[in-house]
Amino acid sequence: MPKQGTLNVAMIGYGFMGRAHSNAFRQASAFFDTPFDLRLKVLCGRDEAKARTIADMWGWQEVVRHWESVVSRPDIDVVDICTPNYLHAPIATAAAQAGKIVLCEKPLASTVEDAERMVEAARGCKTLVWFNYRRVPAVRFAWELVQDGRLGDIYHYRGLYLQSWGRTPGDPAAWRFNPDHAGSGVMGDLLSHSLDLAQWLNGPIRRLCSNVRVFAERRQVDDAVSVLAEFANGSMGTFEATRFAMGNQNRNCFEINGSDGALEFNLEKMNHLQFNDLRQEPSLQGRRELLVTGPGHPYVDRFWPPGHVIGYEHTFIATLVDFLEALARGERFRPDFSDALEIQRLLDLVSQSSQRGCWLESAQLATVSAP
Amino acid sequence: MPKQGTLNVAMIGYGFMGRAHSNAFRQASAFFDTPFDLRLKVLCGRDEAKARTIADMWGWQEVVRHWESVVSRPDIDVVDICTPNYLHAPIATAAAQAGKIVLCEKPLASTVEDAERMVEAARGCKTLVWFNYRRVPAVRFAWELVQDGRLGDIYHYRGLYLQSWGRTPGDPAAWRFNPDHAGSGVMGDLLSHSLDLAQWLNGPIRRLCSNVRVFAERRQVDDAVSVLAEFANGSMGTFEATRFAMGNQNRNCFEINGSDGALEFNLEKMNHLQFNDLRQEPSLQGRRELLVTGPGHPYVDRFWPPGHVIGYEHTFIATLVDFLEALARGERFRPDFSDALEIQRLLDLVSQSSQRGCWLESAQLATVSAP
Amino acid sequence: MPKQGTLNVAMIGYGFMGRAHSNAFRQASAFFDTPFDLRLKVLCGRDEAKARTIADMWGWQEVVRHWESVVSRPDIDVVDICTPNYLHAPIATAAAQAGKIVLCEKPLASTVEDAERMVEAARGCKTLVWFNYRRVPAVRFAWELVQDGRLGDIYHYRGLYLQSWGRTPGDPAAWRFNPDHAGSGVMGDLLSHSLDLAQWLNGPIRRLCSNVRVFAERRQVDDAVSVLAEFANGSMGTFEATRFAMGNQNRNCFEINGSDGALEFNLEKMNHLQFNDLRQEPSLQGRRELLVTGPGHPYVDRFWPPGHVIGYEHTFIATLVDFLEALARGERFRPDFSDALEIQRLLDLVSQSSQRGCWLESAQLATVSAP
Amino acid sequence: MPKQGTLNVAMIGYGFMGRAHSNAFRQASAFFDTPFDLRLKVLCGRDEAKARTIADMWGWQEVVRHWESVVSRPDIDVVDICTPNYLHAPIATAAAQAGKIVLCEKPLASTVEDAERMVEAARGCKTLVWFNYRRVPAVRFAWELVQDGRLGDIYHYRGLYLQSWGRTPGDPAAWRFNPDHAGSGVMGDLLSHSLDLAQWLNGPIRRLCSNVRVFAERRQVDDAVSVLAEFANGSMGTFEATRFAMGNQNRNCFEINGSDGALEFNLEKMNHLQFNDLRQEPSLQGRRELLVTGPGHPYVDRFWPPGHVIGYEHTFIATLVDFLEALARGERFRPDFSDALEIQRLLDLVSQSSQRGCWLESAQLATVSAP
Repeated sequence: MPKQGTLNVAMIGYGFMGRAHSNAFRQASAFFDTPFDLRLKVLCGRDEAKARTIADMWGWQEVVRHWESVVSRPDIDVVDICTPNYLHAPIATAAAQAGKIVLCEKPLASTVEDAERMVEAARGCKTLVWFNYRRVPAVRFAWELVQDGRLGDIYHYRGLYLQSWGRTPGDPAAWRFNPDHAGSGVMGDLLSHSLDLAQWLNGPIRRLCSNVRVFAERRQVDDAVSVLAEFANGSMGTFEATRFAMGNQNRNCFEINGSDGALEFNLEKMNHLQFNDLRQEPSLQGRRELLVTGPGHPYVDRFWPPGHVIGYEHTFIATLVDFLEALARGERFRPDFSDALEIQRLLDLVSQSSQRGCWLESAQLATVSAP
Repeated sequence: MPKQGTLNVAMIGYGFMGRAHSNAFRQASAFFDTPFDLRLKVLCGRDEAKARTIADMWGWQEVVRHWESVVSRPDIDVVDICTPNYLHAPIATAAAQAGKIVLCEKPLASTVEDAERMVEAARGCKTLVWFNYRRVPAVRFAWELVQDGRLGDIYHYRGLYLQSWGRTPGDPAAWRFNPDHAGSGVMGDLLSHSLDLAQWLNGPIRRLCSNVRVFAERRQVDDAVSVLAEFANGSMGTFEATRFAMGNQNRNCFEINGSDGALEFNLEKMNHLQFNDLRQEPSLQGRRELLVTGPGHPYVDRFWPPGHVIGYEHTFIATLVDFLEALARGERFRPDFSDALEIQRLLDLVSQSSQRGCWLESAQLATVSAP
Repeated sequence: MPKQGTLNVAMIGYGFMGRAHSNAFRQASAFFDTPFDLRLKVLCGRDEAKARTIADMWGWQEVVRHWESVVSRPDIDVVDICTPNYLHAPIATAAAQAGKIVLCEKPLASTVEDAERMVEAARGCKTLVWFNYRRVPAVRFAWELVQDGRLGDIYHYRGLYLQSWGRTPGDPAAWRFNPDHAGSGVMGDLLSHSLDLAQWLNGPIRRLCSNVRVFAERRQVDDAVSVLAEFANGSMGTFEATRFAMGNQNRNCFEINGSDGALEFNLEKMNHLQFNDLRQEPSLQGRRELLVTGPGHPYVDRFWPPGHVIGYEHTFIATLVDFLEALARGERFRPDFSDALEIQRLLDLVSQSSQRGCWLESAQLATVSAP
Repeated sequence: MPKQGTLNVAMIGYGFMGRAHSNAFRQASAFFDTPFDLRLKVLCGRDEAKARTIADMWGWQEVVRHWESVVSRPDIDVVDICTPNYLHAPIATAAAQAGKIVLCEKPLASTVEDAERMVEAARGCKTLVWFNYRRVPAVRFAWELVQDGRLGDIYHYRGLYLQSWGRTPGDPAAWRFNPDHAGSGVMGDLLSHSLDLAQWLNGPIRRLCSNVRVFAERRQVDDAVSVLAEFANGSMGTFEATRFAMGNQNRNCFEINGSDGALEFNLEKMNHLQFNDLRQEPSLQGRRELLVTGPGHPYVDRFWPPGHVIGYEHTFIATLVDFLEALARGERFRPDFSDALEIQRLLDLVSQSSQRGCWLESAQLATVSAP
């Protein structure tokens, strides 16, 4: 496909997510026939030496210290934000006001108010929020099975995001424990992913009840949260997100049980999907382990031949490529700022429910995102 | 060990549980050096032909139709109850008043009031409630690891009991769907097991919030229930019990995450226990699959050599043998009627919480059962 | 079904297998509507005190010390042999000559010559050899899938029997390390099971090449054996049997790969069977884990409801019941002495191939056993 | 680390391996602080249009059609060969004679003679053969455990490489079925990997016996091979490599059983390693599933944080980085052409053993490669 042009990217932030995004910008057109070329133009970071190192390794042409100087530069088409959460709002707002394409890490913001302002500012802009797990091939394939009605009526949805770190004070990622910088703990960091997947796979949540907890002494953000929910389609949901499920490294998993089929996914084994086809004769029903590397699975024909597994970073590549293709077609990409605002509202509802000790209704029940 | 005597048993009921209990009465002394001989004296069942068939197969000497005629017979030492739930109370009360040893299926009763009356009537009697899963060797071994402090401080407990049957009207076990006969649906049938294991393994629950649901049309008992809980030890709990987790046959599972170790169990693979020892060096930590058939595991040295798995029915044998040994030593057996009453109260709390849409405190926080 | 009569059983031997057989004699008619009643008449064992203990626990009416006095007693219908291997031949021969029904543990004998004499002596007798793993429900279900053509053309068969014991001198089961008593080490103990399953599932082996090894110092029987084979149906086979696969307790497993399906089984998880149906569309192909506890699976409807697993000992019950039913119908039971003689010849071929360092052709290619 | 210079790379071939190598050349310095910069200078391929597409996607500066024109160009430092096997020898020989660094896909050659000539020609050159699976982090970690003596004395090694493709004529990768182009079928393609890992992990093979088979009609290369082996350390080995293990996509797996520990690996789940530490107390021994993404695992600290899995292509990156570091230190990289020649000789032995139907001794027993 002939390229429709080149997009110059400025990335604000250079931590773990900065590396994952850099990789996506670098590699998208190596694997996919993307409609645009991407140029890794500017990397922006407070610590110039560190930023310089990252820039040199990943191929960013330029390094700057202040995002304010970048977001409205005429030679920048895309502003990608992977800073601590509290900076999402000012950067995204400025970039949107400058008419840029704005890509932002999740959670969209620290508060619903910020998120609403961001959506307002970005009206008319193309936006993306990096809920990258929608684009795990196995997760996308799960979504296809749901869409195809292979699960029948859904009765149960369980979403767990279990990690084990941060129990002791000296652990890394200190900004994540600073309420001013992170906004929340596992709610924004982990539960947001689970809720995004849940609503994408199973439709909107209409009511919920939660328990938000702090385990570590003097911790100022939430360490763990559990949620009961009901979905608009009548199914029951349970969610847990925690950094205290010791022994689990990155177990972002879900299970869906329907009248005709069931699915299980676990990010630690992200190339696999468990599928139980209940339309099979009873003696042959069983959870089957699909190795979602093709043939017939989404995205993977652009990576490696069947049987050759992909890694975590490919989810960012697939997200970016879908975004570029939507851009080329002039279509809305999902999840965008509006979708992420819904998650922000849901997180807020979780927080309130725990404080008030009761079930709360979701006001949304608006459209929840399609592919 | 020389036998301390013979106990004549009368069993009321002859369904699935009747077969499982019969097997235990027959087989206990084949595997274990029990302190008492057991004589399968009377089988009592409404349908005399069916009862006769079961009696002939399993070796019951006598068949009668009416439990009233049996429970006070002087030649009967032990009354074992495996009828539909609503009959537990009258039979157990009569048997207790006649001074019998009373063994009763779970849930103890249909209502807290009935359960209280049973405990009151059985004051002074030896009792057992067939929460048999405490005696799965892998579960008992899990309990030993917890007792030995191998898990450290507990942060999370998850108990799921997932089945898939009864979705369509024609399914078997019709009495389980009759609210007058069963008292409840999955709450008494499945959740009671999960709560008993949870409190045994992790101590008392101090507050909870629940969602009780009916999925099937015209169903008069609960099809599914989910619960958020907090334990007295500070850990968070989640529970789900359902007959609508299609694709799961008998997934009674739990996961416990502590500061020093984690455990996972699944009844469908009841000879295994997953243990993650977090005191190992980080690079060597991982969920290890223990085949709990010895050496060094509870009960199993009396069954088969290491590596030879046991089946479901052995949990009843081990329960019975522990009971007989407690009886011989004059000690209290756990779980007895008092323990089961606590579960009944918890089930009632679950039911109320769902109706009222809020968290409720457990009044108990009394002693929760020891081994 | 009205009983066709009562069979009086004498069991020679009382070790691990004696307990497993006793259980089967006791329990067969509790689970199944057997055509005969079985009476546990005589237990015969050298150590009378031990034999007495076993007899009391399992319900044998009488204990004797010398098998010679039992095998021709007119009040005995069935002679069951579970002694060390070297005694199989004299006992079975004497019992057969006395016209008894003869049941014998595997391997049938210590040598091909003994096995041939036993077959000769038993001509006209009803016989059974306890290759009990054919009657694991999951294995029998595997056989049904093969028979139904669900696997298509078979390309590969792998049979492993991996244990880890006997590495150090003090380990139990000393007779198994005495070449005069055992005849061989893992060949007779473990490989015989694998070969029996392989030929039952996949037809006769036509040629093989092997490596027989001793690892332990001063060990006089084989500790490990590996085999390459070709089956008459054109498929390739590999076998390993060892007591030095440290970390494996009782991993008797096989894998079969055909053009249309694949199967995997592991005795340590004997209630499960892995099935990959290659007639499914490619994107939905995957190894599915069948919980072989019904509905639609062999034997299990006589044990417990679906989802309730069975243990090791049920394989003996199912074997015995099939034997009794064949007996009632006047049909040949498989595997009988003739089938076990084929395995003995194959074991001999394995031994010779290793000594001579080359491939050897199987002379048999006779009928290999049907259900 | 300051770069020691820039290396200009010419890659001959542009198929699946061409993409995997391109990725490694592009990404090595993004993840690692490599001692050299790499410039993707020339891509050489017969079909210029296809080569141009690959070059544009992956960033090769120049495209040429004839390898002869490239391998001696003064502006080229590194020649990387990923053509069909029969071209390895002429290209590598020419490149070596021109003094280039030579990187070559496995198997090194189609014949032992070719491989010997290549080793001879490359005497004095730095070489690498892409046995990339040594650098799977989980495999490298397995090697470290073996080196640290965590497995004790080794008794058993099993290496399987199971795929399912090429059964029907129309399948892709046609050159792999052309004996003139591929040299062999699964022996060179799959078994070579298994043998390289086996000798690296467990030391040299001293004798073997094999069975090489063709299943597909009119197929001129081997479809499947099975091997019995003995290692110099006394352990027993079995190998299978096949494209007819239907249902397996890329199951390159091994199991090692030692006196003190056991390991299992499966490439389809390449981020995991199963380890059974037999120094644990018996009741706590079990196969533990290590998620080899850190901390404390090789390579992975340069990829993503613990719990974030990597994909297939990272094995090429790690291989390349190790090579560059050896180059910078002036050390020999393993596996190089000499190591690969040993594998070639072993493959030849496998082929001869099958033809002659007997065990053959390995002449090598030379040094087998260290890290």
